[in-house]
Amino acid sequence: MNILIVGAAGMVGAKLTKRLLADGAVRGKALTGLHLVDVVAPQRPEGATIKIALEAADLSTPGVAEKLVAARPDLIFHLAAIVSGEAEADFEKGYRVNLDGTRYLFEAIRKVGDGYKPRLVFTSSIAVFGAPFPEAIGDEFFHTPLTSYGTQKNICELLISDYSRKGFVDGISIRLPTICVRPGKPNKAASGFFSNIMREPLAGEEAVLPVSDGVMHWHASPRAAVQFMLHAATIDTARLGARRAVTLPGLAVTVGEQIAALQKVAGDKVVARIRREPDPFIEKIVAGWPRKFSAKRAIELGFKPDESFEQIIRIHIEDELGGRIA
Amino acid sequence: MNILIVGAAGMVGAKLTKRLLADGAVRGKALTGLHLVDVVAPQRPEGATIKIALEAADLSTPGVAEKLVAARPDLIFHLAAIVSGEAEADFEKGYRVNLDGTRYLFEAIRKVGDGYKPRLVFTSSIAVFGAPFPEAIGDEFFHTPLTSYGTQKNICELLISDYSRKGFVDGISIRLPTICVRPGKPNKAASGFFSNIMREPLAGEEAVLPVSDGVMHWHASPRAAVQFMLHAATIDTARLGARRAVTLPGLAVTVGEQIAALQKVAGDKVVARIRREPDPFIEKIVAGWPRKFSAKRAIELGFKPDESFEQIIRIHIEDELGGRIA
Repeated sequence: MNILIVGAAGMVGAKLTKRLLADGAVRGKALTGLHLVDVVAPQRPEGATIKIALEAADLSTPGVAEKLVAARPDLIFHLAAIVSGEAEADFEKGYRVNLDGTRYLFEAIRKVGDGYKPRLVFTSSIAVFGAPFPEAIGDEFFHTPLTSYGTQKNICELLISDYSRKGFVDGISIRLPTICVRPGKPNKAASGFFSNIMREPLAGEEAVLPVSDGVMHWHASPRAAVQFMLHAATIDTARLGARRAVTLPGLAVTVGEQIAALQKVAGDKVVARIRREPDPFIEKIVAGWPRKFSAKRAIELGFKPDESFEQIIRIHIEDELGGRIA
Repeated sequence: MNILIVGAAGMVGAKLTKRLLADGAVRGKALTGLHLVDVVAPQRPEGATIKIALEAADLSTPGVAEKLVAARPDLIFHLAAIVSGEAEADFEKGYRVNLDGTRYLFEAIRKVGDGYKPRLVFTSSIAVFGAPFPEAIGDEFFHTPLTSYGTQKNICELLISDYSRKGFVDGISIRLPTICVRPGKPNKAASGFFSNIMREPLAGEEAVLPVSDGVMHWHASPRAAVQFMLHAATIDTARLGARRAVTLPGLAVTVGEQIAALQKVAGDKVVARIRREPDPFIEKIVAGWPRKFSAKRAIELGFKPDESFEQIIRIHIEDELGGRIA
């Protein structure tokens, strides 16, 4: 099995690569080649024994997509995108990268012809939904994005459904929950604090909580995210029918519940490193975000959420901190 | 008020033109210019006293959109599209005309800059919905088109919402019901029979009914369609919030109810011209179409459906047959 990952240098792309190499196979089919692409060349994974190609390329440059699919990968993960804040600040770049780049990829696949029909896993987002929301968002709730990023993701979902219906690709769009605990440094994303208030205290650092404890959000661990992608890569897409986009299951927890879980796992000393500093600007942004989904369909399709928020914290300690809390 | 109509040569475009000229104003603002565009030059409307420009131009040709908006029309009706069957048969042409052409128009408007923000009325379609459906489709039901045409319309709706949110245009997408009774000759569209079985018998001709009497569908008269467009052109779009696409109100009637209405209005002799000739192929296509919507939101926004199917038939007799039944 020959795999192409576009957006391989990102956090999820790197974890997916590592997992694919550790498994050595996807649903019993041995990996034979891995083509890792991003706007900056992805790092060479350690200890790999199969053929790995690393490439710096921008999908939104005309002609790039054709080269990426020329080797006819059996499975394509398309994770590349510019993030919400950047797509909002730079309208043209957002559409060029998040819409045109993705469409170039679909068109390149279609134009191979000759019966070529790879499985394509596209990471979409719950940003396809826009407030006002019901208490829990059902699988048949409509898509009214409130950002250019959400608009671009929704358009790509529609294209994947149509290209799949026409038999040009065998695609699936998965709407990931917010990834928590996101490893790395604190960033300026408005959603950053959901991870910051877990990751920083566990590492002995202070973290700022800009919203009230009652704020609820929809989370999945990086480990769950990788598992979602592998499941999407191997699921029988006949089960999706014409509806190729799936809202994945997460955990709907409040910030207060996050903190209570942190206290249980890591104790009072760690929790004391969270500093409450309300920020009405961030409160307002977050109020427009989805909080909770039923995700009934995804669960029936075999996508599995994390067990509990305590489990999400333990995954972070295991995978990122070598089991040690500061 | 300076108005641009793209797709002006079509049936609805011609009726809209006629109505605009008859009114001489849109919500109290006098018409000053009318720019009528289609892939074939629209016919010059009779008896007009204002400046009318007629142009044959294809919006999907790069550079055309810029020229169309150069005069900064205050109000733009974008009705141009290739129909469902053609978009399904010619994948590339469908995306070029129905998606790229429309996006060129939005981009041309955005690039005028300098505070230019015209009202734009886009005719979308209930083809953005895909079976299976609930009994009546609510205003928050999701969009899962089952055709390339529906996909393209849905993408354009998303773009209009995003461009409007960003302040580049003041757009509204209206999802028209099936237009009935459609004037003109019988055509090969799978939906043609809904009009054929009314129009042909009223004109003294035989018509074929390929489905059973229980088949329900969602209808509006051409007169209602024009009224929808004028309402969309003048509505306070602040009432739409971020949700710029509206499913318009129609009449959900069965074929049996259509025929009963025809009997009431035109008598047994006319109804006897309908020949039942079941066609399993058409039955199957029609089974995948939406039948009924709540359209609650559109009604609250002031869009008015036809009063009854009898009224729809009377409108046809008045507007197309000079009051005479054959």
